[in-house]
Amino acid sequence: MKGPVVLLTDFGLADHYVGVMKGVILSRVPEAVLVDLTHEIPPQDVRTAAYELWVSYRYFPQGSLFVCVVDPGVGTERRALLLETEGYLFLGPDNGLFTPLFLSHRHFKLYALEVERFLLPEPSRTFHGRDLFAPAAAALLSGLPPEECGSRVSDPVLLLWPRPEPRPGGLKVPVLRVDRFGNLITAATREHLPERGFRVLVAGREIPFAGTYAEVPEGHPLALWGSDGFLEIAVNRGSAAEVFGPEPEILVLF
Amino acid sequence: MKGPVVLLTDFGLADHYVGVMKGVILSRVPEAVLVDLTHEIPPQDVRTAAYELWVSYRYFPQGSLFVCVVDPGVGTERRALLLETEGYLFLGPDNGLFTPLFLSHRHFKLYALEVERFLLPEPSRTFHGRDLFAPAAAALLSGLPPEECGSRVSDPVLLLWPRPEPRPGGLKVPVLRVDRFGNLITAATREHLPERGFRVLVAGREIPFAGTYAEVPEGHPLALWGSDGFLEIAVNRGSAAEVFGPEPEILVLF
Amino acid sequence: MKGPVVLLTDFGLADHYVGVMKGVILSRVPEAVLVDLTHEIPPQDVRTAAYELWVSYRYFPQGSLFVCVVDPGVGTERRALLLETEGYLFLGPDNGLFTPLFLSHRHFKLYALEVERFLLPEPSRTFHGRDLFAPAAAALLSGLPPEECGSRVSDPVLLLWPRPEPRPGGLKVPVLRVDRFGNLITAATREHLPERGFRVLVAGREIPFAGTYAEVPEGHPLALWGSDGFLEIAVNRGSAAEVFGPEPEILVLF
Repeated sequence: MKGPVVLLTDFGLADHYVGVMKGVILSRVPEAVLVDLTHEIPPQDVRTAAYELWVSYRYFPQGSLFVCVVDPGVGTERRALLLETEGYLFLGPDNGLFTPLFLSHRHFKLYALEVERFLLPEPSRTFHGRDLFAPAAAALLSGLPPEECGSRVSDPVLLLWPRPEPRPGGLKVPVLRVDRFGNLITAATREHLPERGFRVLVAGREIPFAGTYAEVPEGHPLALWGSDGFLEIAVNRGSAAEVFGPEPEILVLF
Repeated sequence: MKGPVVLLTDFGLADHYVGVMKGVILSRVPEAVLVDLTHEIPPQDVRTAAYELWVSYRYFPQGSLFVCVVDPGVGTERRALLLETEGYLFLGPDNGLFTPLFLSHRHFKLYALEVERFLLPEPSRTFHGRDLFAPAAAALLSGLPPEECGSRVSDPVLLLWPRPEPRPGGLKVPVLRVDRFGNLITAATREHLPERGFRVLVAGREIPFAGTYAEVPEGHPLALWGSDGFLEIAVNRGSAAEVFGPEPEILVLF
Repeated sequence: MKGPVVLLTDFGLADHYVGVMKGVILSRVPEAVLVDLTHEIPPQDVRTAAYELWVSYRYFPQGSLFVCVVDPGVGTERRALLLETEGYLFLGPDNGLFTPLFLSHRHFKLYALEVERFLLPEPSRTFHGRDLFAPAAAALLSGLPPEECGSRVSDPVLLLWPRPEPRPGGLKVPVLRVDRFGNLITAATREHLPERGFRVLVAGREIPFAGTYAEVPEGHPLALWGSDGFLEIAVNRGSAAEVFGPEPEILVLF
């Protein structure tokens, strides 16, 4: 028995979909520890799922098994993957969900699941979270070695991943994610910017760079290093997404 | 100690209601395993709760105890029930929540809870999830045999359950549930339809029958067998509920 | 190892924030029992968080550790507190979140966390749920005595807490909370009102006082004692917040 099973889906919490995935796992591994990463990925939004997984996995214990089901191609010939890296395991469809993990790791092992081996009896063609990934997770928890889950592959589907782009005098910085607080999380990290002395323009308006939200008056915008290491556009006690929209033009000049 | 306690309510996750139910159970059975089926049943929508429970319970381990609290009649003389069937236990108000379980099982034992035996001290009249069902669940987990929870009864409240209705050349098929993806889950199962060669009309428009979503172009509607065994109306990478509304007239002709 | 860790935040469930807090705790205490109280506190609404915590904690087992992160001042000099009372522990920012706990307890011990001792390596200045409170919770679970977490303090930030106000012939009663069902939970308890014979006026309209929702016809308003011991304004099978708005003038005359 390894670490916890961490679930990431776009199933929401209104339907029984997440619950029955847990039921399938607990039916086979009653002592499994189940943790929700999030189930509120916008429906079929593989890019957001990829982002959320990428910035989260390292905070979980070594030995954690992530079961990631954002799967618009369910029921087609798309492969199901098992990714092994740094002491973590990841199960999910081959649709780009693991793109930033691939980009940020040189060493990993990737397997295409031998699907028939894991499917529940009378599987659906539309709910592989329950019928394929949950039983595969249970098999791994029960001790099946990753290399026995399928054959090694090296050609996963990759998403085009947004990166800062050079502009005269600086960078144009795309938004990766809008969070619950309306913070705009951009693709710029400390590696892209000078340590100090840069200016941030959002939709043509310069905003201050600060250390934390409360350094500007309530309702005022700011840029800061967000908790996942990305440049973030925020509004103290407000919502940057409301002030600027979800994808304003963001320029960093230095 | 049996299997997990599976919680189904209309309490939502914004308030403390679900949390304190778990607190009451853990206060009495610290090692209890708690799983959420869903808490986002529309307020007081007993029919939706009945559907979600019915299509889910069999994926959970034998010995699971379902605590189901969608309870618009709380505080009245409505009975509280314990249903025992196929190695599962179900607690909930006597308001029809177990209707499809009754319709699909010939053998079950049903008890009217001896309420006073389980109530917390100074119970409210509006929150039996916390004050009655949670302590009753804890008692069952602690080993109280079902037959000691109350007296046998055989006259539960039943909902009128939607079924396909004959129409010239086929069936009119009601919608049981709209899920997060906007899929319309109908009351028709494989038992109602010929194996092949039927046509599906939604709001007067014929749509193709397919094996999975991706067999039609993006944005196009289709009918397919959904993951719970019902005929489902969907839109590939879209929402059938948005295209057709939540309860369009659905005809299957054969 | 003590009782469960109970989490209360305004992080919502769409982002990874709650998930990674759990990851940090499980990385250090794999056997921790994690329970969600709620994560849907309106963003930065310390008062609602204070209410939800106050009415909930006593239903959890002795030894429970509450981790409460509604923290608009994160990254500033605001202190982080550990409150010990009645066999419960509470971690959270010093912003008034524990106000009703202070008002209702004479005996408690309060500590200002020695922050540097607990922070993750390279902590952010915006996500102390993950970087400070989760590791502090793990340290307490692992047996660190409260008195070694920081220095005793006695001057916590307090919110002005709404109370009933005298009016000619009775009381004006503020609303503390609107729940999912649209029930208006007021600040009046049995201690404020005579046992019987009072009249309730909401926005100038007298409504009946009843024992439970179903004592009035569907769609009709009523006042009743709610499940947390407060006078509540409700509508049978409807929403009082829709009928009266979220903060109508409520008068109780006696």
